[in-house]
Amino acid sequence: MKINDFFKLMSPKLTVLVTTIDEKGRPEVSTFSFVSPVSFEPPLLMISVGPNKHSYWNLTRVKEFVVNIPSEKMLEKVWEAGGKYDPGESKIEKFGFKTIPSDKVRPPRLADCPAQIECYEEFSKQAGDHIMLLGRVVAVHADDEFVDSKGNLKVDVVRPPLHVSDNLFAFPYVTKSV
Amino acid sequence: MKINDFFKLMSPKLTVLVTTIDEKGRPEVSTFSFVSPVSFEPPLLMISVGPNKHSYWNLTRVKEFVVNIPSEKMLEKVWEAGGKYDPGESKIEKFGFKTIPSDKVRPPRLADCPAQIECYEEFSKQAGDHIMLLGRVVAVHADDEFVDSKGNLKVDVVRPPLHVSDNLFAFPYVTKSV
Repeated sequence: MKINDFFKLMSPKLTVLVTTIDEKGRPEVSTFSFVSPVSFEPPLLMISVGPNKHSYWNLTRVKEFVVNIPSEKMLEKVWEAGGKYDPGESKIEKFGFKTIPSDKVRPPRLADCPAQIECYEEFSKQAGDHIMLLGRVVAVHADDEFVDSKGNLKVDVVRPPLHVSDNLFAFPYVTKSV
Repeated sequence: MKINDFFKLMSPKLTVLVTTIDEKGRPEVSTFSFVSPVSFEPPLLMISVGPNKHSYWNLTRVKEFVVNIPSEKMLEKVWEAGGKYDPGESKIEKFGFKTIPSDKVRPPRLADCPAQIECYEEFSKQAGDHIMLLGRVVAVHADDEFVDSKGNLKVDVVRPPLHVSDNLFAFPYVTKSV
């Protein structure tokens, strides 16, 4: 196997919708699967941004973003928001994403996502052909029907799309206790 | 919801077994779910290491590691290797992990894992209560039966355990094309 294919082995990946704004406050959305929690206290997460993404340009200007967790119902939108950005076009408008204001950051949340995590950019680093961003979590939201009493996402209810390759996605199934 | 619960919303998470060695060459294994690809070229991935993990001590001494992708069959071992480390004890011996030599790095691979990714540590940064490591991929391995012709993990065959919370895991199911 080629070493550049390593990411095809780290599969399937939780896939999220990240919202940003440009310097005029216009919101944009893009799909990310290079994403992970990093620290519990303070709460930090990592997203790795491709330099051709519109999100990248927005994040160089407004260092705030929201990680929105999609459900199975949103699979088509997850795919669409991962497509190429055409300058002058808004994916939020084009694909009909409904937005609601965030509590602590300027980029909006996606109303149809069962959970949203608001972040300030705390650190960024060029890492190969991507830019690795550390986000400091400043607010979290999740509808009661989608989280249990301990705050865990009900993955069997939400069934977040997990990216496999190209346009293939898997879904989490049968939660097992060890 | 509390902001510190953000990671419970980023669920389920691909969960991997990371092998390291200490300065005497003794191997150790630990379970990680704070892990993600970061860059295609050069191939880079991120793991976020808790400071109490034996892996952390090993990585401060020998800056090489292997990311081993487990299968559903290994669920119990994935759970066991995530448990607390007792000084002087080897989880590899205690839980009967079978190791095989790596090609480019000194830590061994786990023979029962369908895929393994060998890395040199290229960068590290204290990030809250964890240490974020960037690994440069230097070799990859996957058995033919577990990858398709494009190098993608056959997730429906391997069914890697996806961490939900505590001792709960989900498995990927029904791959869908958009």
